[in-house]
Amino acid sequence: MKVGIIGGTKGLGKTLAILLKKEGYDVTITGRDTSVGLTVSEKLGVSYSNDNKKTANVNDIVIVSVPIATTSAVIKEIANSMKKGSLLLDVTSVKEGPSNLMNELLDDDVEFIPTHPVFGPRTTNLNGQVIVLTPIKKGKWYPKVIDFLKKHKMRIIEASPSEHDKMMSIVQILTHFSYISTASAIKKLGISIKDTRKFASPIYGLMVDMISRIVSQNPILTYSIQLENENGENVRETFTESVLELKDVLTNQDEEKFVKIAIEATKNLDDIQAALGRSDKAIESLNHEISSLKNAVGKEIALKHIYSEEVHIGILTDLDPEFVTLNTKKGEKNLKIANIKILDEENLKEWKLINKEIKTQSISCVFPNSCNEAIIAQAISKLDEITDVKITDIYHGPQVANDKISITFEIDAFDVSAFENVETFLKGFGGIIR
Amino acid sequence: MKVGIIGGTKGLGKTLAILLKKEGYDVTITGRDTSVGLTVSEKLGVSYSNDNKKTANVNDIVIVSVPIATTSAVIKEIANSMKKGSLLLDVTSVKEGPSNLMNELLDDDVEFIPTHPVFGPRTTNLNGQVIVLTPIKKGKWYPKVIDFLKKHKMRIIEASPSEHDKMMSIVQILTHFSYISTASAIKKLGISIKDTRKFASPIYGLMVDMISRIVSQNPILTYSIQLENENGENVRETFTESVLELKDVLTNQDEEKFVKIAIEATKNLDDIQAALGRSDKAIESLNHEISSLKNAVGKEIALKHIYSEEVHIGILTDLDPEFVTLNTKKGEKNLKIANIKILDEENLKEWKLINKEIKTQSISCVFPNSCNEAIIAQAISKLDEITDVKITDIYHGPQVANDKISITFEIDAFDVSAFENVETFLKGFGGIIR
Repeated sequence: MKVGIIGGTKGLGKTLAILLKKEGYDVTITGRDTSVGLTVSEKLGVSYSNDNKKTANVNDIVIVSVPIATTSAVIKEIANSMKKGSLLLDVTSVKEGPSNLMNELLDDDVEFIPTHPVFGPRTTNLNGQVIVLTPIKKGKWYPKVIDFLKKHKMRIIEASPSEHDKMMSIVQILTHFSYISTASAIKKLGISIKDTRKFASPIYGLMVDMISRIVSQNPILTYSIQLENENGENVRETFTESVLELKDVLTNQDEEKFVKIAIEATKNLDDIQAALGRSDKAIESLNHEISSLKNAVGKEIALKHIYSEEVHIGILTDLDPEFVTLNTKKGEKNLKIANIKILDEENLKEWKLINKEIKTQSISCVFPNSCNEAIIAQAISKLDEITDVKITDIYHGPQVANDKISITFEIDAFDVSAFENVETFLKGFGGIIR
Repeated sequence: MKVGIIGGTKGLGKTLAILLKKEGYDVTITGRDTSVGLTVSEKLGVSYSNDNKKTANVNDIVIVSVPIATTSAVIKEIANSMKKGSLLLDVTSVKEGPSNLMNELLDDDVEFIPTHPVFGPRTTNLNGQVIVLTPIKKGKWYPKVIDFLKKHKMRIIEASPSEHDKMMSIVQILTHFSYISTASAIKKLGISIKDTRKFASPIYGLMVDMISRIVSQNPILTYSIQLENENGENVRETFTESVLELKDVLTNQDEEKFVKIAIEATKNLDDIQAALGRSDKAIESLNHEISSLKNAVGKEIALKHIYSEEVHIGILTDLDPEFVTLNTKKGEKNLKIANIKILDEENLKEWKLINKEIKTQSISCVFPNSCNEAIIAQAISKLDEITDVKITDIYHGPQVANDKISITFEIDAFDVSAFENVETFLKGFGGIIR
């Protein structure tokens, strides 16, 4: 299956190229800059073309992954070049414009599925991520795409293009606009956000983190989303009205009106108790992590970088509000607390199973005839660093006393020191190591 | 030590009354409504007075805990009644007004400490909570108050009243104002928040939760905070300017200016990487909980209500986006996911130790002489439901074979079924139960 990704040299297009290549698709990416295109395509092991029309013409599936502002132009450019029976997808954050354009320009024998994958370019795992599909009509490709998304455990939302854009006018337009206004006001007021954090509850800290997330996004993308969504102007206008109204209410010291606005706004929000519960739990998990780190000072701990997924194991020697210092086998490491998480025993074991060499040793031990080898094997498997225990031999015979048997266990462990522990353990129950 | 709490019949004043009574203080609360005052004081086991002046006159410490709008009036009412050598505290969210007023009206032989405990009335544990103190001068009481707060592991911030109010103009004025404006705009736009959640990432969900937290606060308190902070008008004015500016920039399609505003606002925020990391981790912990619940369907699980702290143990029979159904010994329970957390093994054991009756049984078992009773005891202690193991007797003698010893373990467990498991375990190693 041949897939062409228009704009596959960066961002989401590139992420899709990596993913589809891994799935066995024959992938071609396009991009305006030939030298960038050749470098990226070589690195990903995919083909490169600087000709969008030709790419549209030779592929079974074409995905348009270009900035919002140029999406319409690209659709217009390639619409007539798409081959019969092929599929065109876009991945733009607005859906009315692209959906209508594809519907208008494409031949009946070319299928199109407008999509909006609702996640940022930092996402590496599709599992649980939301994708909105706004099909105007469905053909033979539609169930195949659904199967693909389900296989990756994505949350699929189907909606009309206008419904999508209406929802995004809150999800994106309003939140981006109000958060950037807030951050811009803080800047104008000349107050240091870092200082304010000291004076406030952890909830405020997380609130500022959320504002930082939005405000620090690619401003050109944010700008395009504001402009391309047809509801944008109305949403900004309505928000401005609300701001001016609330400001006047306070200037006029109209307590009654203020209370009325707040209560009506609250009623329109969904389940407040659930919102309090979820945000309390989110804060609690961050606080819990800090206490766990405090308790781990002087002890061995395993920390995983949340983006690189690299695991660092060592003695936690120091902790300040921003960093932990870890004394690892490779030397001292300073790690930013915000970017690491503590691996619990289960996760650490999983990581070790993938990353550490497993050592194997056989241990034979003599026990009374009445023993139960399965119970012993299970007890061994619960000792530290042990990954697997098999019973490979049970011996009755001249080499052991009449009322005894010798059991041989094949034991897998992360470290050879574990085998000594096993012997001590078995001897502790009166077993005799052979 | 006698403490009077002006406005101690509800909110933070009531919380303080409970806390100080527990610490052994002789507490009197006041409140305008005598019948409420008598009911509450009887319930808390403290005294009640409806006379603020008299209360000020007879107590060593007086705490003013009334709505912001009446704080000044109360300070004026009681200032001349305070007895020599006593201490006056307030707990208001604004500090310039009350601090200056106390400084002006109180005699030199009455000490005052303006405070702002930065947490909501739902907080039951002071550990780690922030309190801001804005002393204008410090007397003999100051170190005592610090000791008290440190004993409760609070995070103490000392600042001037004006610095406090400046910080709160962001922490409270700006965030409350922009979030209420946002919620009010959503209401005007007539869009259902519940629907928008379906179309969005979990980060958006948490963002809406934060907005819900703020908007659903007591609107009369929110109103007072807006009005009483001297920076309020200026902050609201600056925010409105930012909103109008950004709106115009978008109406004029001035991409360059938009990008400039966003970049400058971003630069003024602190560590963006840390903000992304923390918020990613907060989301991950909520997602992780949902997956754990999904994996637990059909299995036994322990869930703790995050506010009542009640623990429910049972088979998880059903799960929808909002609720879990648990089949417990007391029947079927529907619990709201947002308000419960999963108890891990360690926490469950802690809870059981406090809440479940411990059963004790002695088990004697014969092992070869060469065994090590400490190793066996330790292995027993790691079996399910076991809480403690002691070695109470080691017997060499006529009743056991020459090369054997009998060891008696006194075992504590949550359930008698555990004792059978212990016997099976010991027999598995060839031990002979006596």
